[in-house]
Amino acid sequence: MDITLIIPIAGLVGLAFAGYLTWYVFRKDLGTPEMQEIGSAIRQGAMAYMKRQYTTIIAISIVLAILIAALIEPKPWVGLSFFVGAGASALSGYIGMYVSVRSNIRTAAAARRSLNEALVTSFRGGAVSGMGVVSLSLLGVAGVFYIFHSGMSFTTSESLDAAIGFAFGASFAALFAQLGGGIYTKAADVGADLVGKVEAGIPEDDPRNPAVIADLVGDNVGDCAGRGADLFESTAAENIGAMVLGLSLFTFWTNIVPVSMQWSDSKALVWIFFPLVARSFGIFASLVGVLAVRLRNEEKDPMSGINMGYYITCALAVVFFYFATTTMFGDEWKYFFGAGVIGIALSIVIVYITQYYTSGSWRPVREIAQASTTGPATNIITGLSIAMETTALPVIAIILSLLAAFGLGQMAAPDVADSTYKLIYGFYGTAVATMGMLATCAFILATDTFGPITDNAGGIIEMSKQPEDIRRRTDRLDACGNTTKALTKGYAMASAALAAFLLFGAYFERVSAKTGATLAESFRVDIAQPDVFVGGLLGAMLVFLFASLAIRAVGKAAYAMINEVRRQFKADPGIMANTSKPDYAKCVDIATKGALKAMVLPALLPVLVPVGFGIIMRYAGYDAPQAVGALLMIGTITGIMVANMFNNGGGAWDNGKKYIEAGNLGGKRSPAHAAAVVGDTVGDPLKDTAGPSIHVLVKLLSTVTLVFVGLFIAQ
Amino acid sequence: MDITLIIPIAGLVGLAFAGYLTWYVFRKDLGTPEMQEIGSAIRQGAMAYMKRQYTTIIAISIVLAILIAALIEPKPWVGLSFFVGAGASALSGYIGMYVSVRSNIRTAAAARRSLNEALVTSFRGGAVSGMGVVSLSLLGVAGVFYIFHSGMSFTTSESLDAAIGFAFGASFAALFAQLGGGIYTKAADVGADLVGKVEAGIPEDDPRNPAVIADLVGDNVGDCAGRGADLFESTAAENIGAMVLGLSLFTFWTNIVPVSMQWSDSKALVWIFFPLVARSFGIFASLVGVLAVRLRNEEKDPMSGINMGYYITCALAVVFFYFATTTMFGDEWKYFFGAGVIGIALSIVIVYITQYYTSGSWRPVREIAQASTTGPATNIITGLSIAMETTALPVIAIILSLLAAFGLGQMAAPDVADSTYKLIYGFYGTAVATMGMLATCAFILATDTFGPITDNAGGIIEMSKQPEDIRRRTDRLDACGNTTKALTKGYAMASAALAAFLLFGAYFERVSAKTGATLAESFRVDIAQPDVFVGGLLGAMLVFLFASLAIRAVGKAAYAMINEVRRQFKADPGIMANTSKPDYAKCVDIATKGALKAMVLPALLPVLVPVGFGIIMRYAGYDAPQAVGALLMIGTITGIMVANMFNNGGGAWDNGKKYIEAGNLGGKRSPAHAAAVVGDTVGDPLKDTAGPSIHVLVKLLSTVTLVFVGLFIAQ
Repeated sequence: MDITLIIPIAGLVGLAFAGYLTWYVFRKDLGTPEMQEIGSAIRQGAMAYMKRQYTTIIAISIVLAILIAALIEPKPWVGLSFFVGAGASALSGYIGMYVSVRSNIRTAAAARRSLNEALVTSFRGGAVSGMGVVSLSLLGVAGVFYIFHSGMSFTTSESLDAAIGFAFGASFAALFAQLGGGIYTKAADVGADLVGKVEAGIPEDDPRNPAVIADLVGDNVGDCAGRGADLFESTAAENIGAMVLGLSLFTFWTNIVPVSMQWSDSKALVWIFFPLVARSFGIFASLVGVLAVRLRNEEKDPMSGINMGYYITCALAVVFFYFATTTMFGDEWKYFFGAGVIGIALSIVIVYITQYYTSGSWRPVREIAQASTTGPATNIITGLSIAMETTALPVIAIILSLLAAFGLGQMAAPDVADSTYKLIYGFYGTAVATMGMLATCAFILATDTFGPITDNAGGIIEMSKQPEDIRRRTDRLDACGNTTKALTKGYAMASAALAAFLLFGAYFERVSAKTGATLAESFRVDIAQPDVFVGGLLGAMLVFLFASLAIRAVGKAAYAMINEVRRQFKADPGIMANTSKPDYAKCVDIATKGALKAMVLPALLPVLVPVGFGIIMRYAGYDAPQAVGALLMIGTITGIMVANMFNNGGGAWDNGKKYIEAGNLGGKRSPAHAAAVVGDTVGDPLKDTAGPSIHVLVKLLSTVTLVFVGLFIAQ
Repeated sequence: MDITLIIPIAGLVGLAFAGYLTWYVFRKDLGTPEMQEIGSAIRQGAMAYMKRQYTTIIAISIVLAILIAALIEPKPWVGLSFFVGAGASALSGYIGMYVSVRSNIRTAAAARRSLNEALVTSFRGGAVSGMGVVSLSLLGVAGVFYIFHSGMSFTTSESLDAAIGFAFGASFAALFAQLGGGIYTKAADVGADLVGKVEAGIPEDDPRNPAVIADLVGDNVGDCAGRGADLFESTAAENIGAMVLGLSLFTFWTNIVPVSMQWSDSKALVWIFFPLVARSFGIFASLVGVLAVRLRNEEKDPMSGINMGYYITCALAVVFFYFATTTMFGDEWKYFFGAGVIGIALSIVIVYITQYYTSGSWRPVREIAQASTTGPATNIITGLSIAMETTALPVIAIILSLLAAFGLGQMAAPDVADSTYKLIYGFYGTAVATMGMLATCAFILATDTFGPITDNAGGIIEMSKQPEDIRRRTDRLDACGNTTKALTKGYAMASAALAAFLLFGAYFERVSAKTGATLAESFRVDIAQPDVFVGGLLGAMLVFLFASLAIRAVGKAAYAMINEVRRQFKADPGIMANTSKPDYAKCVDIATKGALKAMVLPALLPVLVPVGFGIIMRYAGYDAPQAVGALLMIGTITGIMVANMFNNGGGAWDNGKKYIEAGNLGGKRSPAHAAAVVGDTVGDPLKDTAGPSIHVLVKLLSTVTLVFVGLFIAQ
């Protein structure tokens, strides 16, 4: 049997499993009528927002698709698959959200019975997204390649070009979804917290707060829909990048090596398909892991149930990797198996580092809490310092993994390989490590979407005034969800860093393919050349400017939200007295408009800047492909730093507040707590808007340069 | 007459002029006994701190000097000149502070008579530092080179190695001085503001505040001594870097070109000496500019008097540049003249951009002020967004200047130059542009040191309870000083960015000199190689980690300061009632200890990391010189971003607060004002500790790699 058959099988099994999970969650009961009323308000707000957001995204995507169809070879197919990719990415976000806004209420209802049932319900609800996204991405990439390659008899290189369009479409739509959702969720959150918690002194998720429904909607459109689209494009981009690198090795074995050693085309396709096969096995590993998540009894930390599932997934991923490498490669299997294990190990290391920096049990969060006793300013100063410090250990781990995976890849190269092909083998080694890291992707995404579901469930319990012991159950799940959300972001950034090299490699390969220059000439970004160096400067600046716009959008929308909540409290004293209902819809509307208006400019920036720069440099007579390469690479480095800083810093601020709320340093309503709330609020747009958006930005830089590279090359 | 004779002449004239300015300021009267008492307390605190700080710096420098003397060729001379450089840098800081702690009281006394007299006194006090530092640096670099080259008959290359040691020593001591001073000043400032202004509601510089003397001392040890050492090392490093590049062109004309075209050694020395000649003319231009600073009448904005001096300096710099280039170069003078003018123009552009972002007249600061009305959290969010945005325009200006200066340099290359030497001509073009930008350096440094002098004068006026109209004069000067401080930092970072290329070039030249490889092979940092790329990752991470440590140090010391001030207010209610004096000395002691303890680790980091990384990469068999080159270059890019963000963001927060204090949005004591004070406090360690220290860090990365490059090369 051809092992590549596992690709469609895994994709379909993954989708079927997502269907099973949906069935599992949906047959659960819906709780009390009060709970249903709130759940339905959240669902309606979220769906209304999604509709408007997608209308905008689709309109912009159509314009860009037409441009690409007219400009980029093979015309018009790249434009078409761009549009399909954008649609598939949007669909992934939609599926995640569709299920999550229906899982929240069922989780709340399950929490009335047992912690285990609530955990399993929310986790499986999250896993629909995880399995669905990864399976769809796998089927999409493989399908597009297959249609062009086998169905329409394009060359391998042209088929990959078309598939690159798919990945670019996915990234493009994902950036809008992540930005829009991120702005929405944090504008509502900041508005609800600052007026409700700080000024009016009412608890989180109190039904008297006019922004509370917007806040709960935000969790869904930001964390579920945004992250779903994000992860879809990540896996698509990384799969295709690895396939492009594989194409170089395909050519090597079918054309470059001495004739007596040459492989048949069908045998050499192993280099192109291995990444997809590895991902397919990852789906099976995650499937088992998801089913394994449960709690033996009420006293156990829900985190232990999730950890058990994660370790099982990792262990299975190692076993499957062993099977895949020994089956597909010859004697070199051990190098690629080693690289895959490095990727899996890196994911575990990053999870530990992230936990150290964002959990209340260790120095960093406690330092922030301590600094809150001297007011908001020292809280922010200390938080910023911690946020910047958090870049250090992940970077060291990434450096070691990159060098090791690269070295292993090089060792796999046969003696006949010249230095250029040794280099490409090395790049391929990092691609395999990335596939190792991403083997657990579906599981990780499940833990991510689990977060907002439990958060929502807690809100529903609070707003429908359920008894204290039920609230305590959802609180425990919610705390656990905060941790998993932070871990997911650390994982996502580390995988982006590891994947960076395979995407750079793909870019150089395309430069070579389009210029006709040798690979040796094309695998080069010499920043000692000033025209190349300024590309790097621009890339770093792009990340800062993008982050600035994303943060500002939240600030502006939150400002409007704060004024609206203040206005409602002032206009109708009955709200605080519980005699009249606040106008939730008005706040939902403010968040929606704020997000839609503010997402467009920052989302277009990472498309316009690299393309504009590349074209200008080309016509100014500079080495445009290298200059754009520097923009891509140094933009990626800067993105890794800033996103790490934002994600971990925001998580640390959040848990610094929670540490005080747990009764330390004066507890709730102490001056230290007020200061910590300011820190948490500052961290919100960093960790939930800018940070995750930078993650998409980094990928988008790769896919946009891959698609447009032909325009940078002087004829 | 040999035009290079102007180098010692300008150095000596500059020193003599600094002596004249000192005499001019010192013969002014000292004001009332109350004023003298306060002035003397500031002086004593500052001098006591300097003594302890310098003891630490000298001890560490001796250890490092011995190591260098033992390891680096030509032994032991590099170690010796390292020590001399560290001493000269420390001396520069000392001179600046010696004069400033004596100018503050005289400025206060002069303010009783007229605004013009106060302006001229404080500006000339600041100019002692400006002229002294630039002259000393010029004499030091030229002197060290001369002693080794002519006095001890070392080769040109060896003499430059020794001079590089001098620059590294200067950077090393400067980093300690800037970090220690920066931590001191902001710990005191934050402590004084948060408890005094926010909690106790007393005005700035109120004598009842126990931290007020420490705060005033801090202005001197941070802004005067720290910045003096910083600018000393900047000019030293940039002069030497340009000379090293000049050496390549020296070799080109004496060895590489066809014999019939070859120049004599003495003629070709023009490439090595031109940078120093350009700096010499800059001293004369600045001298005239300093004398031109005055105010025609009381109503005029003091800023207009300073601007007049600045424009005169710029105009003269252009004229002198014309003279220097036409005298020293042949027909190519016009290219180098053009490059110099680009540098001068860039400095003016950067001043305008910085003003836009940090002055209350424009959108950015007003947005921050507006966001303060919804509390500290939105103030911080908006401020962070503005801070990140401020990187965009300067980077674009720098990119255009770099490409233009490089292109002009290449045009100056003769037809016989191959592509490598064309490249070096281009690098030299950026060096000449840097010299253009630095022509106004002495004047700019004067405006920088002017800031803390006026700040102190205002404090002395306030504490000695002088009449309102005198206070208003120093307030106007102080506001002007805040602007000039922000502008100086923008200027410093932009010049560092422009200078980056000449320093990179110098590094590659040294790689070539030490490996014996050709220049073409050595002028290369190919980040498409993973071992080189990880160097870049490490460089970016180093900047973040360094910033984290610097900010944290302020947070910690401020925390101790806040608790001490709170303790004093609580222990002795007589302080607030004005019946007993607070314990100023205790606060001075806390700031001193906090600064000295916290400066060591971050100051050693940028030495240990590149050297350690280079040695590890060498023995691991990687291309260590290129990997360290990537660390240097991407560390520089990241440093430019982060320092710009910190400096401008901090300035914008500061002036956002001042905008509200001027009566807008509720004015002083409004909730918006309280929020803006939090923002200002957060910005303090960013703009006065971390930001300026990163400026030194970037230079130090260049000098440390220049000195240690020999250790990275496998034998």
